[in-house]
Amino acid sequence: MRYFDDIKVGDRRELGSFTFTAADIKRFAAKFDPQRFHLDEEEGRRSLFGGLTASGWHVGSVCMKLLVADFQRQAQELAARGEAVAIWGPSPGFRELRWIRPVLAGDTISFASEVLSMRPSESLAGWGILQGRNSGTNQRGEAVFSILTTAFVPMRETK
Amino acid sequence: MRYFDDIKVGDRRELGSFTFTAADIKRFAAKFDPQRFHLDEEEGRRSLFGGLTASGWHVGSVCMKLLVADFQRQAQELAARGEAVAIWGPSPGFRELRWIRPVLAGDTISFASEVLSMRPSESLAGWGILQGRNSGTNQRGEAVFSILTTAFVPMRETK
Repeated sequence: MRYFDDIKVGDRRELGSFTFTAADIKRFAAKFDPQRFHLDEEEGRRSLFGGLTASGWHVGSVCMKLLVADFQRQAQELAARGEAVAIWGPSPGFRELRWIRPVLAGDTISFASEVLSMRPSESLAGWGILQGRNSGTNQRGEAVFSILTTAFVPMRETK
Repeated sequence: MRYFDDIKVGDRRELGSFTFTAADIKRFAAKFDPQRFHLDEEEGRRSLFGGLTASGWHVGSVCMKLLVADFQRQAQELAARGEAVAIWGPSPGFRELRWIRPVLAGDTISFASEVLSMRPSESLAGWGILQGRNSGTNQRGEAVFSILTTAFVPMRETK
């Protein structure tokens, strides 16, 4: 990944998209979120969601999957250019996860990541704290998912 | 689930526990969070975490799994006593997810859910808004996971 010095507020990366099939939705739900509207089309139709709906944890996990793929793409691009790859700190968690609209079977969600704010860490010299938003939008351009993230990112001099 | 009227601040439910095996950790990571310390014991040992570590999304999804099982247990208990079962609204999301300590292969995490605050909804007559915390503690009594949740819960008169 990139160093703190090479990132600026407003930077945005498209993370790619994922189509939630009925089979995917049911498989995740059976394992982690076996509520009826995540397991059965007819129960989904009869629920507030209006159709078979992905678990919110499934949507968040798919966003993570695309984020990791993007990290790996960034690292390969940097390495291909002969540049050093920064190792970010472990994530302490996140704030304000919002499931804005249901993700129904067949929906294709495009995820993006943007930088909202940046500041040097007060407690850890040579590190910066980056706040960002990861978001998901469906094939009709409607926001479905948003999460505010915090990351610890090394500065170049900490190498 | 229970009605708003039957819940009070401080109510706590033990949701049960889950042991994260190396196989579970790798299976989830391969699908949703393929970072090296989630996929390989040796890479985990060399990382800041000190061992093969569960993806934070895996920990959150397991908490959801135990929460749903507890919802179903509550519904059965109410039905067995001949009481009405409340249908809660869909979750709008949550706040402040914290991954406090790594969950390593072999760790057994006990989850609990407690009610932090309650108020009537201003916009939706007959509904209340409940704020709570779901948390996870390992076999040494150390907090590993915490998430603040919001739920829309019907009052008895909305039946």
